[in-house]
This record gives sequence, C-alpha cells and structure tokens, in this order.
Amino acid sequence: MGREITPGTKDGWAVLHQFFDVDFKNITKDDAEELKAWLNEDYKADFGQSAAFHVFGHKGPLCLLHFRKDFSLIAELEKAFYGLKISKNLRLKDSYISVVELGMYHTTKKAVENLDKEGIERFSDEFYEKLENNLSHHRENLTERAFCEIPKLPYFCFYPMNKKRGEVNNWYHEPIDRRAELMMEHGMTGRRYSGKIQQIISGSIGFDGWEWGVDLFANDPLDIKALIYEMRFDEATSLYGEFGEFWFGSRIEDLAGWLG
Amino acid sequence: MGREITPGTKDGWAVLHQFFDVDFKNITKDDAEELKAWLNEDYKADFGQSAAFHVFGHKGPLCLLHFRKDFSLIAELEKAFYGLKISKNLRLKDSYISVVELGMYHTTKKAVENLDKEGIERFSDEFYEKLENNLSHHRENLTERAFCEIPKLPYFCFYPMNKKRGEVNNWYHEPIDRRAELMMEHGMTGRRYSGKIQQIISGSIGFDGWEWGVDLFANDPLDIKALIYEMRFDEATSLYGEFGEFWFGSRIEDLAGWLG
Amino acid sequence: MGREITPGTKDGWAVLHQFFDVDFKNITKDDAEELKAWLNEDYKADFGQSAAFHVFGHKGPLCLLHFRKDFSLIAELEKAFYGLKISKNLRLKDSYISVVELGMYHTTKKAVENLDKEGIERFSDEFYEKLENNLSHHRENLTERAFCEIPKLPYFCFYPMNKKRGEVNNWYHEPIDRRAELMMEHGMTGRRYSGKIQQIISGSIGFDGWEWGVDLFANDPLDIKALIYEMRFDEATSLYGEFGEFWFGSRIEDLAGWLG
Amino acid sequence: MGREITPGTKDGWAVLHQFFDVDFKNITKDDAEELKAWLNEDYKADFGQSAAFHVFGHKGPLCLLHFRKDFSLIAELEKAFYGLKISKNLRLKDSYISVVELGMYHTTKKAVENLDKEGIERFSDEFYEKLENNLSHHRENLTERAFCEIPKLPYFCFYPMNKKRGEVNNWYHEPIDRRAELMMEHGMTGRRYSGKIQQIISGSIGFDGWEWGVDLFANDPLDIKALIYEMRFDEATSLYGEFGEFWFGSRIEDLAGWLG
Amino acid sequence: MGREITPGTKDGWAVLHQFFDVDFKNITKDDAEELKAWLNEDYKADFGQSAAFHVFGHKGPLCLLHFRKDFSLIAELEKAFYGLKISKNLRLKDSYISVVELGMYHTTKKAVENLDKEGIERFSDEFYEKLENNLSHHRENLTERAFCEIPKLPYFCFYPMNKKRGEVNNWYHEPIDRRAELMMEHGMTGRRYSGKIQQIISGSIGFDGWEWGVDLFANDPLDIKALIYEMRFDEATSLYGEFGEFWFGSRIEDLAGWLG
Repeated sequence: MGREITPGTKDGWAVLHQFFDVDFKNITKDDAEELKAWLNEDYKADFGQSAAFHVFGHKGPLCLLHFRKDFSLIAELEKAFYGLKISKNLRLKDSYISVVELGMYHTTKKAVENLDKEGIERFSDEFYEKLENNLSHHRENLTERAFCEIPKLPYFCFYPMNKKRGEVNNWYHEPIDRRAELMMEHGMTGRRYSGKIQQIISGSIGFDGWEWGVDLFANDPLDIKALIYEMRFDEATSLYGEFGEFWFGSRIEDLAGWLG
Repeated sequence: MGREITPGTKDGWAVLHQFFDVDFKNITKDDAEELKAWLNEDYKADFGQSAAFHVFGHKGPLCLLHFRKDFSLIAELEKAFYGLKISKNLRLKDSYISVVELGMYHTTKKAVENLDKEGIERFSDEFYEKLENNLSHHRENLTERAFCEIPKLPYFCFYPMNKKRGEVNNWYHEPIDRRAELMMEHGMTGRRYSGKIQQIISGSIGFDGWEWGVDLFANDPLDIKALIYEMRFDEATSLYGEFGEFWFGSRIEDLAGWLG
Repeated sequence: MGREITPGTKDGWAVLHQFFDVDFKNITKDDAEELKAWLNEDYKADFGQSAAFHVFGHKGPLCLLHFRKDFSLIAELEKAFYGLKISKNLRLKDSYISVVELGMYHTTKKAVENLDKEGIERFSDEFYEKLENNLSHHRENLTERAFCEIPKLPYFCFYPMNKKRGEVNNWYHEPIDRRAELMMEHGMTGRRYSGKIQQIISGSIGFDGWEWGVDLFANDPLDIKALIYEMRFDEATSLYGEFGEFWFGSRIEDLAGWLG
Repeated sequence: MGREITPGTKDGWAVLHQFFDVDFKNITKDDAEELKAWLNEDYKADFGQSAAFHVFGHKGPLCLLHFRKDFSLIAELEKAFYGLKISKNLRLKDSYISVVELGMYHTTKKAVENLDKEGIERFSDEFYEKLENNLSHHRENLTERAFCEIPKLPYFCFYPMNKKRGEVNNWYHEPIDRRAELMMEHGMTGRRYSGKIQQIISGSIGFDGWEWGVDLFANDPLDIKALIYEMRFDEATSLYGEFGEFWFGSRIEDLAGWLG
Repeated sequence: MGREITPGTKDGWAVLHQFFDVDFKNITKDDAEELKAWLNEDYKADFGQSAAFHVFGHKGPLCLLHFRKDFSLIAELEKAFYGLKISKNLRLKDSYISVVELGMYHTTKKAVENLDKEGIERFSDEFYEKLENNLSHHRENLTERAFCEIPKLPYFCFYPMNKKRGEVNNWYHEPIDRRAELMMEHGMTGRRYSGKIQQIISGSIGFDGWEWGVDLFANDPLDIKALIYEMRFDEATSLYGEFGEFWFGSRIEDLAGWLG
C-alpha cells in the first residue's frame, strides 16, 4: 500500500475532435468548397491528417478529426478555422483534446520486476533512471504506430474514459502486476476483433476532462457494439471502467457535397 | 472471479429517436404536408418505418421515431431532413441511437453449460467458435421479431437504461447463471402485461450514452406506470437497474393536422 | 431476498405542472385576458381543474398546474396552448407529468399476510388474482380523494422524489412489512400538520424523471419548512428519500392582473 | 435506531438572493437611478432591507440581496422588479429562497433530556406539546437576531449546504445528543472569528434546492477562506457537510454609479 | 477521531481566470489594440500582472489570467472590462476565483508536535495563539513566492481540485501527520519535474466551487500529461484527489495580432 508505479507510454499525434452544429440553410457552395480545400485529408507522416464524419443524432451532425505533429499546429488550425467564411455557419459545441498514446504496461512491469530483483529501491533516483532507459529503447519501435493514418473505414465511434478511483475499486491503488494482467486480458478481447475494428487510444490527462479517448473504426457498426459489450465483462472495465458520452457516426467522403 | 460471459444478441432495425421543439407559429400548411409526405409511416419489411408522437411537457412536443434496415439509411434520412423546408421550425434538442436487440440470455447460458460439461476451456478459441455456432442457429428464428412493426397503440414511453457496475452490486461481474435467472424473473413480470403493453428493447452500447433503450406502447398509460413500478421490485432492477430520462407521449395520427 | 411485493395504488387525475419564463414587457391586456379565459380555474369533477402560481426566484415566475381526467385531455390542452396569442411570450422551461396517486401500503400488507397464511405461493397466478381482487374493493372508496380539488391556500411547494436504491439502503429490496411500517410512521408525521398543510402525491414512474411528485399547500410557508424538516428525520426519508428541485410559490388569484 | 428528534428553530426574515447578468452597454443613467431609488437599502425593522453586491467572475456581476418580513413582500418585489425599465437589461440567471434561521440544538437537546427523565414517551402527543412549550419560551429571545440588519462589511460570500444522508454518515439518522455536540464544536470554530466575520444562516428546506444558505460578511476576504477551511476539519463538516456553488463578491455602495 | 488540525497557509495574489468565447468576425483592429493596451502584461510586484492564453477546443478560445494585490483590484478590473469596446465581442462563459496559496503542512505538523510535547491542549486558546505565532514567523519567508511572476512558458493547463470527503477515504478526517506525509510524497513527485514544469497553486475555499486551482506551465505539453499521470498514483491523489474540468492552452504573445 502506498504510491504505485506509473506505466510508460509512447506519445504520438496531437489530436483534436471538433463537434459542430451545422446551419445548412445558409452555407454556399463556395464556402463548402473552401472548407473542403482547407481540410488536410491526405496523410502526411511529418505533419498530420484530418477527416470529416457525419455524427448521428443531436450531438452532430459534423465531426472534424485532426491529427497533428504537435499542439502548435493544433493552435494554428483552430485559429485559421475562424478565418474561413463557413465558420459562421458551424457552431463548435463540443471538442476533445488528446495525444495518441500507446500503453507500455507489459514492458514497464517487466522492467520493474528486474529492478526489484536487482534490489534497487522503488522510486529512488536510480530506479527512475534505469526504468526510463529501459522504456526509451522500446519507445523507438512504437513511433510508426503512434503516428498512424486515420483508418479508412465507413463507421466510427468516439468516447472518453477514466479508470475508477472508487472507495472499493481503485485502479490507481492497484499494484502494477495486477494492472498489467488486466490490461493483457482486455487486449485479448480486442484482438478477437482484429480485421473488423481498428482502435486508436489517445491520452488526455491534463488536456481534457477524462483520462483517455477511444476512437473505433469499423466496416460494420454492429461490431462496435459487440466489442464494447464484450469488453464490459472484462474486469478492466467491469471493476474499473468509467465512460463519458459516446459519439457515433459515419465517414464523409465528399464533405463539400455533404454540406451542399 | 474474473472475466464473465457476454450473452448473445440478435440485432435488428437501426433506430433513431428524435425529439424536437416546434415553432408552431411559423409553420405553413405546405411545410407540414411536406414533412408528412416525407415521413415513412408505412411499414416496409426490407426498409423500415417511421412514426410521430406528441411528447408531454417541456421535453416535447414532437418525437419522430425511425426504424431503418441499417445506419446508412439513418444517415441519409438525417441529411434529407435538413433539406425539408420545415426543418428551420423544428429544433432537434435530443435524440437516441440504438439497434433493436433481442437478448439471448437463456440460450447463451445453456450453451455455456454444455461447453463446460464438454470440458472446453472458457474464453479459448474453441469455446468462442462453438458458442457462436450454437447462437447463430437460434438467431435465425428471431429475425422477424428483430424487424417488427412499430406497435399501433395510442401511448408510448421511452427511456434509456444501464446495468449497474457499482462497488457492491455489479451486473457485469455476476456469473451468467445468476444474470440469466434474474432476466428470466424480470421477463415473467413483463409477461403478466402481455396484451396490455408492447415492449421493444434496443441496444446502444457504443452508439449512445446508455446501454439500452426501452420503448413501451400501451392503450392505457396507467399500465405503463404499473409495469415499470412492478419491475422496480425485481432484483434485476432493484439491485442493478439505472435509468435515464423518461419521455412519455401519445401517437400522432395526423401529423400535418397536428402541426397546423 | 429476491423479488419484493409492489404496493397497490389508486390513480386519479392526470397532472401537468408547467413552469414558464414570462416576457412581461410584450404581453398585451387582451393576450392576458385570453389566457385567463382559457384556463379552467373552476373544479369540474368529471373534467379537471387548473390553477396559476407565482414561483419565487429564477425557476419562475409562472407555474400553471393542470388536473385532467386523462392524458388525452392533457395532450389537447398542450396543443391548444400553442394556439393562444400569449404563448409566444411564455417560454415553457420546465414541466412535470404525473398521476394523482393514493398509496395502499397498509391494505397491500394485510392482504399479503392473509395470502401467506392461506399458503398461496407469492407471485403465483393465484396470488396476483386474489391480491388484485382484494385491492380493487378498497380502491372504490378512494375515488373521491383521487379526483380532489386543488386546495385553495395561498402558498404551495412542489418537488419530485425517489425512493433510494443504494448499495446499503435499498427501498425496493426491503420486505413489504418494513416498508409499510415506515410509511405508517411517515404518515403520522404528516398527520400532525393536518389543518395546516394539504398534500397531494402523484406518481410519475414511466412518465417523468422521478418516481413521485409532491404538492404541498399551506397558509403559512413556514409550516412547509417545518413539515419537510421534521419528515427528514423519519427513516422513510433519512434512509430512503431522494429529492429533486424544489419549486416554491404563491397562488395567483387574478392571472390577467398579475400578467398586466 | 428509528425516527430522530428535529431541532427547534427560530425563523426570521424571508430572504431572496438574485444573481443577474448585466447588459451594461444599454443601461441609461435614468434607468440606473430608478433601480437605485427602488431598492430598499435602509434597514426597517418591520419591513426589511436590500443590498447590492458585485459578484466576482462569470456567476456575476450583480447580486441583489433582499430581506423581507414575509414572502408576500418577496412576491411583490419580484413582480415590481419587472415593472422597472432596467429589468430588460438585467437577466436573472440564478437565485436562492430561504428564511433567516437560528438553530436551537442545545435548547432542544436539554428539553428532550428533561422529557426523557420525566418518562414521557418520545413522539407522543404529550411529548410534542411539552417540547413546543419549552421551545416557544426561548424563541422570543431570538426575535431581534432573526430580524437583523445586513452587515455593513465590504466582502461577502454566499453558499448553500446540506447535511449528508450517506449510507455510512447520515446526519438525519444520528441521535440529537451527537448532533448537538457537533454543532457546539462547529460553533466554537465560528466564535474564534467573531469580530472578523459576521454570519447569517437561512433555512431553505421546502423553498429551494439545498437545506440551508450561508452568508458570510467580512472586512478581509482571506478571513472567509480561513474560516471555511478551518470548519472543514470539524466533524460536523468533514463527515456531514455538503456544499453547492460559492458566490463571492464585494458590497456596492453606489449602485447607480456602478451600473453607469 | 474528531476535529482535525488545519494546516497553515501563506496567501498571495488574488487570482482571476476568465474564459471567453470570441466573436472574431466583428472585432476591429482598434478594439483589439485597446484590449492589448489595457491588459497589464508586465509584472509589477506591488500591483500584479495579466496574461493571455489560447485555450484548445470549445472551452476556449481565450483565457485571460489576472494576478492582483487584492480583490478590490479584481473588482475594478472586472468593472473596467465592461467599458472596453471589445467586451461586446468577448462572452465570459467561465471563470475561476482564487488566491495564490503556499501550503505549510510540514511547518504546521512540526509546530503541533512541539505543542503536544509541551502538553498544551489541542484547540485551546493557548494552542491557537502559539501555533499562529510559530506560523507567522515562517510566513514572512514565503512572501516572494506568494507574489511571483506568471511563468513565461509556451503551454499552460488549469484545473480545480478538491480533497475527498468520502465515506471511506476522507482527507479532512485524517490526522495531520498522515496528511503531511502524503503531501511530502506528492511534492517529491513534483520535484522530479522541476525545470520542466512550473506550478502555481491557489486556494479557493469560500471563493469558488472547488477547494484549490492548479496552474501548470511547461515548454513541452507532454510533460504536463506525464506529471499529472504520475501524480495520480500518489496516495494523496489516488485516495483523496477529485478534479474538475481541465483547460489546456498556449501563451498568446501578441494578443492584438491573435484577435485580428
């Protein structure tokens, strides 16, 4: 009991989800084309990528998803957006700020086990230094996945989540072995849907109101329901998962046409 | 204790509930007729059906309920709605996205019992394959109920719900036998109201903010109150049920007249 | 432990509380008179009655309370309201939908005790049939109270409430004997205020966001505070009561004058 | 365990807190003077008193605090406010309704101890009668404090609060001896700030969304922080206190000038 | 068990965070220049300092942060803001009021230990007097830090927080030794980020809706995420931390240009 070990992470794209009300009746063809031209829909590995989604129901109808190399580019795009003529017809009503994040639970757990065996005191300067050295080697291999393309699949779902700090079930008070085991089991559920669902996790501690954001992309929306339902029975979720709102939608191929 | 079994489901109509404020004073007869003509009020088994309801109180006054074969048709109808002249006088202030869902708790429980007897390890590849084979046979028989008509009864009630993941009472941490038994008992309460209440359950995990939506249709609104009150004393609800808002209303037979 | 007994109820008036913002500066004398003439302020035993209240603070300033024989009349009045000229100056910002409900805890408890003695299995078909027969006899005597007049007292208070389904204190998981005893004790507190406070309970399970609504009417507003404070120390409330917002106001005798 | 004793109270001024957005750009000098002239800023023992405060941050910028002899005067002033020309430039966005309340925990506890000694059954008619007789004698001495002036100090803070009815810590389920002791201890913390802070408690059970409102007035705002921080470590608060929003501001001496 | 010791604090700048919606399309160059000239961006030790930040997402886009010698200067600046021409294009939608606060947990704990050893009764007059004497000597040394400059770093994050008063984990019911130890451990986590992150804590008990506000300033936003994630595993947070919303942004160097 006491302080617990923080897992290492590999951070990638800075991510902005924007959710807009659309005043369709007052959008001109030129304004729609201007937005379309402005949006960076092509993947550039050293810059980023954007995509547009139709969001079902009153939380929509429009989501713009932006991946950028860093937050200075996010600030630039937010500022530039207000310069577009169409911005007066798109009311930004919700958003989410995060960074693509690859968890390193297994690697961290292994490294800590070794440091324990070496007799190095947890949370000592030496401990932190050796742990960081170990993690940084593994981080390099994750760069490509951390700066991935936005999956080209017709349906998507976004939701933020926390790990619970309840008075009985408290994720942040569990030893790293237990947490690593639960994350492993959780990952196995996900793996059963590979080929059907592509998932991008982003971290938002310090950036937005929840700890992580989850984007799921699928050919068949029923697979999204099936995966999340199945995961709800994993102990990582049944005991420790907390969820915010869910945004569900479909990819817009021709944004100018959709707006017109 | 650990991971628990996910029950099988049979998924049917994609469902959209839309709740609108209505600017009655500025609706013309032509605009009302255009909406009426646009709404698919006739049941088509391979396409879907829509219906209009007067919603009581400030959460209303108008609900449009749409059943569609899949979500691409939901996206189309949402987009087309903005093209109607009346759309500027109908403010979409709330909505719910889901899929008609028939639970298969009993079937799943039986199948798992058999797999246990056969000595097949739970959550192994073989387990999932054999379970899915078993469920898919039963699913075929449920197709008609999953693509049912909207009941033609004068009153309706809609509410979303979750199964609780509390620190004491946690539905998702209960073994499937216990859950199947509670669902059976819950179903028996419902059966006592057959002939009085028609119920359509839809699943919304991954699609909207709650896990399920419940639509009840009745001749007598007091039966709606009686049923839900009685169900509240079932352990499925008393220990595990969580509810969102309730929308209560009456079927609009002549939408153009109601708007005029 | 398991399913618990639902108490019988006698249902009366369909009830609608409407809470409005008022745009006083743009209301003409004629529009105010039209509303006054439209409102059914006189009690008709076979139809219903309406009343107007000044609501204190920003949740007001106007409440219209409507009792009607059934919900079809509520739907009609809501629809007719939009036809009034004044409706553009009254913004409906909150509401509550319910049905006057007289609890039959004591009667239900006695009937169940007798059925237990007769050896009839709880929740069997025979049990339900005999219980309903017993309750229906007592229901007849309650008709007049279920379709009562709106008390003519100068102050009123409205609030919705639930019975808690907590992980320790769970009303819906308590045996009917315990619940009946607590309701009896709670009623005795209320009886000490007879002559000072008139109370109308309405049920809203399936109709609105809470399980019951409570209307209190009094000559002296301090009696409202005293009664609710005292009731808070009854176990029915201290362990099981949950409350929503409170609306507190005073009867408007001359609505047209008040609006002018 | 069971029903617990309600402490006696002495009730004073009817209280209304109003919180306004101010449309400064469209307020004329005449309109500001009209409001200033209308506001009853001078204390009248048989009528009441009003005061204006600058509220910091977006919950402001204006609070009007009104003490009145009874609620009919509150209804009158609310109605009269809408007749002022400036009312179209002041948007009422929040409010609080309550009654100045002096707690009589110690007196009630002593009286109950005596009744217990006399062998009078708690909650019997005789018990209530004798308890009320005893309290009413003490109430007379509290009249002046219950109808006090609004303290003339430059800073103020207002917040509503409840006593917790948790599943572990439940104020309303504690015996009166325990509650009286905790209130005594809490009062001793307050007394250390006499000369620095003036406090007015008002009760709002049945009138507004919390059980009490607290107004603190101080020369030095840091004393407000120090007092509330220190009180947070009293068991009356650490175990049983629940707080709503906090409004913090400074007295406006010249309202017409402030608005101009 | 009972009342617990309040730690001493050193209070500094009065702090106002303002969060604005910006109507970019209607801002003139002159209005932007007027705001820029009005804002006190230069640090004055006897007056204060202001700074502007771009806030990411829909909670932005503009934050103005103001440090002032006392709250009378905050009131003045809020009032003066409404006199600026640009104020009609900046909608204040959120804010936070607090006072820079340096905790004195270690000093308080040591002082109390000594008073205990001297046999002085806790919470006696003598106890408070001697404790205050002791703390006031240490306070003098903290003046410079309490009136610090706004760090000149490109990224910032602001969030409010509470210490939990749960039914199991209750910060305000823990002895001061335990709390001082946890704060020490928490501080050690922070120290590992010195040189990367500058942190300013401000107290808001009695001023705003949470107990403290935290401002973090960094060169690299990923360090903000790393620090808060790591702190989440400290028991001060895992057991006792509660967080409000997070605002994340970047420093605006040229406010007039940013608005233009």
